[in-house]
Amino acid sequence: MRIIVDAFGGDNAPREILLGCAQAVEALGVDITLAGDEKKLAACAKELDVENSFSKMEVLDCQDVLSMEDEPSSILKERSGCSMAVGMKALAEGRGDAFASAGNSGALTVGATMLVKRMKGVKRVAFAPVLPTAKTPFMVCDGGANVACRADMLMQFGLMGSVYMEKVMKVKSPRVGLVNVGTEAHKGDELRQEAYGLLKNCPGLNFIGNIEPRDIPYGACDVAVADGFTGNTVLKLYEGTALAMMGMVKDIFQKNMKNKLAAAMIYGDLQGLKKTMDYNSYGGAPILGASKPVFKMHGNAKARAVLSALGLVRDCTQSGYVEAITQALGK
Amino acid sequence: MRIIVDAFGGDNAPREILLGCAQAVEALGVDITLAGDEKKLAACAKELDVENSFSKMEVLDCQDVLSMEDEPSSILKERSGCSMAVGMKALAEGRGDAFASAGNSGALTVGATMLVKRMKGVKRVAFAPVLPTAKTPFMVCDGGANVACRADMLMQFGLMGSVYMEKVMKVKSPRVGLVNVGTEAHKGDELRQEAYGLLKNCPGLNFIGNIEPRDIPYGACDVAVADGFTGNTVLKLYEGTALAMMGMVKDIFQKNMKNKLAAAMIYGDLQGLKKTMDYNSYGGAPILGASKPVFKMHGNAKARAVLSALGLVRDCTQSGYVEAITQALGK
Repeated sequence: MRIIVDAFGGDNAPREILLGCAQAVEALGVDITLAGDEKKLAACAKELDVENSFSKMEVLDCQDVLSMEDEPSSILKERSGCSMAVGMKALAEGRGDAFASAGNSGALTVGATMLVKRMKGVKRVAFAPVLPTAKTPFMVCDGGANVACRADMLMQFGLMGSVYMEKVMKVKSPRVGLVNVGTEAHKGDELRQEAYGLLKNCPGLNFIGNIEPRDIPYGACDVAVADGFTGNTVLKLYEGTALAMMGMVKDIFQKNMKNKLAAAMIYGDLQGLKKTMDYNSYGGAPILGASKPVFKMHGNAKARAVLSALGLVRDCTQSGYVEAITQALGK
Repeated sequence: MRIIVDAFGGDNAPREILLGCAQAVEALGVDITLAGDEKKLAACAKELDVENSFSKMEVLDCQDVLSMEDEPSSILKERSGCSMAVGMKALAEGRGDAFASAGNSGALTVGATMLVKRMKGVKRVAFAPVLPTAKTPFMVCDGGANVACRADMLMQFGLMGSVYMEKVMKVKSPRVGLVNVGTEAHKGDELRQEAYGLLKNCPGLNFIGNIEPRDIPYGACDVAVADGFTGNTVLKLYEGTALAMMGMVKDIFQKNMKNKLAAAMIYGDLQGLKKTMDYNSYGGAPILGASKPVFKMHGNAKARAVLSALGLVRDCTQSGYVEAITQALGK
C-alpha cells in the first residue's frame, strides 16, 4: 500500500511530517509518497538524519504551499500547484492508495470533492472524527465540512458513518443518533424533523432517534449525525471542556505538597484517564464520501501523531470502507 | 417584593417547590404567591409541617397542570387554566414582581411571549442560563428558546445578555462573542456572517468577535451568542461533558483503598472543584426579553435549589435588569 502525504501541510511541516513518515516507512510496512519541495525535503532529511528512510520514499516535486489563511477554493485556482493539490491529483490518478494532510481543512474538503471526487451518489463529503468517551468512542459526522446542510445530506452522513464505524472500528450494528435539542421525534427545526424521517426509514441503518448532547459523553451513540456547524460545535466544545476539566484536576494536584503526594499515589490511573480522553489518540479523521481514502491529520501533529495517523490510514484503507460505503449507498 | 411561583411545575412539584418557598418566605425577605390547587397545597403544607410559612403566602387557586409532554402552545389554549398560565397572567396584571417555574420550558417561553408579553422592540425572548467555568461564568443566549433565528435576533440576544451580565453578575463591559466554527469574521454560514456585522456595529456592545466552542470552557467570553439550537447544544454538551469527567475522576478515587486514601487527602479541593462546576449553583435562568422578570428553575429542583433560585430571582428583579434592557434596546 502506498500512502501519499502532504509534506507541507500543518503547523510543524515539513519537519515533523517527514519524521513521522520516516518512522512509518520503517515500522508500518507501507510505501510513502511525499508531495512537496524535493530540495527542501532532502535538506530536511539530512538535518534530521533520516536520509536512509527518505531514500525509500517517492517525491512529487512541487514548490507551492497552501496556507491556513488561504481560501479553501484556492486549491482549484491560485494554489492548484500546491503540495496538497498535487498529492490529491496523484491519488485521483491511481498513483497511491490513500492521501493524508495536516493542512487547511477547508481546502482538503474542496480537494476531496473536486480533485479526488465524490463517490457516485454522495451529495457532500463529510469530516468524520472519532472521539473517545469513558465507555465507547463516537464519530461526529459531519464535524465541520458543511456549515449548511439539507436533510438528505444528514441521512447520508449517518449511513457513511455507520459503515465506517462497522468496518474500521469493528462496532456491530452502530447506533446512529441525530444530535437534537430533545429526544422526541418532533423536536428541533425543520432540518432535524425531516432528517429524522429519512434516517428512520433508511434501510440497514440502526437509527436510535434523536440524542441530546448531554448524553454523548456517556457513549449514547456510535455515530452522532449533525450538520457541519453543529458537529463542529460538538467536536470543539467536547475537546475544550474535557481539556479544561483535566486542567482543573491538574491544578488541584499541584496546589501543595500534600496534594502532590496524593497525585503520586494515583499517578497510573490519572495517566490512564488522560490517555482515555486523548482526542489525538485516533490520529486522524477520514473525509467520508470521497471516492478514495482521504484523511485529515491534526494541524499541530508531531512525528508521533503523524505515525499514528498513518497507521490509521493504512488500517482504514485495508478495511475497504470506501467500497463498503459505495455499496451501502447503492442500496 | 412579591414572587409568583408555579407550585405545580417540575419533577418534584408541589412538595419540593412548596418547601423551598416556605424557606424563602422566612429567609429571603420576599412575599410569595403560589399558583396551583389550594386544597392540595394546604394538605401538602400540613404533611411537610410548614403550615405557618404557608399561611403567609397567597394562593392563586387553579386545578389544571401543564405537563412536560404538553405542547408548549397549549398554555394559550387547552391548558390556559394551568398553574403556569395563571401565575403568568397574575404577573402581567401586576399582582407580583416576578414569576418562576420549574415546568415545561417551551410553554414558559410561549407564556413569557404571549401572556407576560415581550418588551417593546424585542423580536424573540431568549432562555439565558449562566454557566460556571474555572475562571469566569458565562451566559448562553439563546440557550434553547428559538431553534431557528434571524441575525437581528442574535444581535438582540447579545445586547440583552450583556445588560444582564453587567446589571446582575456585575461584569464590567461584558465580552460578547458569537459562537462560530472559526474566529475570522467571514467564518460560518450566512446567519453567522450577517450577525457578525450587526453585533460589530451595535452601539455600546463590547463585541469580541467570533469565539470557538473550545475556548468557552476557559472563560473566553461573558456572553456566548447563539441561535437556540446551537446554544442548547453548547449548554447540554458542556454540562454533560463536565459531569462525565467528574464521574471518571470519582471512579478513579473509588477504585481501591490506596486511591480512596488519596481522595481523602484532597477531599476539600475536590469538593471545591465540584462546587465550581455545579451548573445548578446559579439556581435558575432568566427568560430575557419578557417585559417582566420570568425565570426558569431546574426541572428537577429540590427545596434547596428552589430557595437558591428564588434568591436569584429577588436579586435580579431588584437589579432592575428589565428596565436596563428596555433602555438599551431603545438606543
